[in-house]
Amino acid sequence: MSGTPRWILGVDIGGTNVVVAAMPIEGCDPLALRKERTHPDRGADDVVLRVAEMLEGTISDVLAEKGGSREDFAGVGIGCPGPLDRERGVVLETPNLGWEEFPLRDRVSDAVRLPAVLDNDANCATYGEWWKGAGQGMDPLIGITLGTGIGGGIILNGEIHHGVSDTAGEVGHMAIDFTGRRCNCGNYGCLEAYASGTAIAARAVEGLEAGGESLLTEMVSGDLTELTAATVYEAAIRGDSYADDVLVETAKVLGAGIANLINLLNPQGVVLTGGVTRAGEHLFGVLRAEVRRRAFRSATEACTIGPGALPDTAGVIGAAGIFKKTHLGSV
Amino acid sequence: MSGTPRWILGVDIGGTNVVVAAMPIEGCDPLALRKERTHPDRGADDVVLRVAEMLEGTISDVLAEKGGSREDFAGVGIGCPGPLDRERGVVLETPNLGWEEFPLRDRVSDAVRLPAVLDNDANCATYGEWWKGAGQGMDPLIGITLGTGIGGGIILNGEIHHGVSDTAGEVGHMAIDFTGRRCNCGNYGCLEAYASGTAIAARAVEGLEAGGESLLTEMVSGDLTELTAATVYEAAIRGDSYADDVLVETAKVLGAGIANLINLLNPQGVVLTGGVTRAGEHLFGVLRAEVRRRAFRSATEACTIGPGALPDTAGVIGAAGIFKKTHLGSV
Repeated sequence: MSGTPRWILGVDIGGTNVVVAAMPIEGCDPLALRKERTHPDRGADDVVLRVAEMLEGTISDVLAEKGGSREDFAGVGIGCPGPLDRERGVVLETPNLGWEEFPLRDRVSDAVRLPAVLDNDANCATYGEWWKGAGQGMDPLIGITLGTGIGGGIILNGEIHHGVSDTAGEVGHMAIDFTGRRCNCGNYGCLEAYASGTAIAARAVEGLEAGGESLLTEMVSGDLTELTAATVYEAAIRGDSYADDVLVETAKVLGAGIANLINLLNPQGVVLTGGVTRAGEHLFGVLRAEVRRRAFRSATEACTIGPGALPDTAGVIGAAGIFKKTHLGSV
Repeated sequence: MSGTPRWILGVDIGGTNVVVAAMPIEGCDPLALRKERTHPDRGADDVVLRVAEMLEGTISDVLAEKGGSREDFAGVGIGCPGPLDRERGVVLETPNLGWEEFPLRDRVSDAVRLPAVLDNDANCATYGEWWKGAGQGMDPLIGITLGTGIGGGIILNGEIHHGVSDTAGEVGHMAIDFTGRRCNCGNYGCLEAYASGTAIAARAVEGLEAGGESLLTEMVSGDLTELTAATVYEAAIRGDSYADDVLVETAKVLGAGIANLINLLNPQGVVLTGGVTRAGEHLFGVLRAEVRRRAFRSATEACTIGPGALPDTAGVIGAAGIFKKTHLGSV
């Protein structure tokens, strides 16, 4: 490569969408962002093909707008659900995507003829919020991604804490009620079993089936299988007290989990990203009160808890940042 | 100081006992170990006076046995229950000792005219097991001290993880049942509320009061206020099935808590120290099975879980190690 690279590409592969963008090497707003459905059912090869097309499109857009040449792109950071083997760049298994032992990093790298790194999607989102979002300058920083499931990332001394086998940061699989709700992971009472989007919808349905009265029933025309966490937020915003109760309970459960993280890791910040945070300040007020009630005071006072600042782009920004850190030594 | 120091002093102040010893600078078996009752009720000044006498006694013993001079002692590492302000060397508050805002480090340093460092007692025990005990070479390493309460320490990249305000590692105050037993810290369902020595005794008494039949009642001559965790271990060893059930439940609860730590931090090792570990391999078998049932497989397989190797000396060895690391740059 001749000269100093000007751009890094980021890819964020989720169960629902793939997001691709280019980051200026010095790290400011991402450019030429593309977002498409993942369609994981079409298979890993097909996803790689489409990711490569999106990357080529982003490269073309950046060159058309900013000039320069393909040599100005340093490489690609890729975020994907895990567990992963980062060193080999392999996705070991992803329940949401249905992939096993898939060499995602090298397949993408070969397709676009650029070096690439692979990391966990929640680690990427946390790194993005730490590098350019709501967690800037905070260390330790814990990121919690609230979506279909609950993921997490831990930043310590400016690095993602990966642990001894690349599985650290599974905040969603901390049991807060060890005899409680069964979780998809096989454990009982995980945070994810109460506060993921899926769990919020399931808890709302359970209460309605037990006779709860709510706008929700009408909003899904009586078909409770259609009810999602998004329906619950919308009903709460429209003033439905049943839906509000479900969200308040969710905030309390998240508060209990975050209190645990604060007592264990004494972080400077906790950043929450993803769907559940759309419930806004009402949710964060309840959550912070629950943390104060539960965690050590000196640790609680030292910690800022709030929503992420990069709702759609934390993942791609973080993936690009991890590439920069890995290949160029620092962000 | 002339020449290379040969010894470092370690002090481990607990609610019940104070332990003092000298460590050879290269770190092998501690010498001239002294152990006395703490008597915290006599006040902080009195404890400092006696700690200083113990240190002078240890110095004299080492010089008598090994020769040399007082200049061969580099300084003192002190472990004490917290919360602490390490930078100022001040004990902020200790429920077990009744001290508040006490400048322990400088008081000990002045009394023996040697530099000193102060750290949390559970951090010291964990550092001792990492430096010279069961956790050697393991990183990340989590130490759990099971005594009257439950403390913890986290080693990451060869350093104690202190967090942003020196309170990290409070493993005992991770809620595993957020609507469960009230804990002394004010939270609900903390690991400490189930598996500390105090909690083991309380749970045993509750079951007996509800009609449970056991040797335990006879062992305390019918006075259940006399029952301690040690009584429960002894009854279990003597074949009492009620006491065994209490310990099996304790092991399961510890397993649930350790599964959380493994999912969050993906450590290479977890070392348990203190009274509860006297229950031995029976307890560890149940505990490890519970971890396997709950935590991610790849993380569980990467982690060794076992008892500490330094039952009485992990704290002083670790305190001396922390002094060495702080003042001489590495252990």
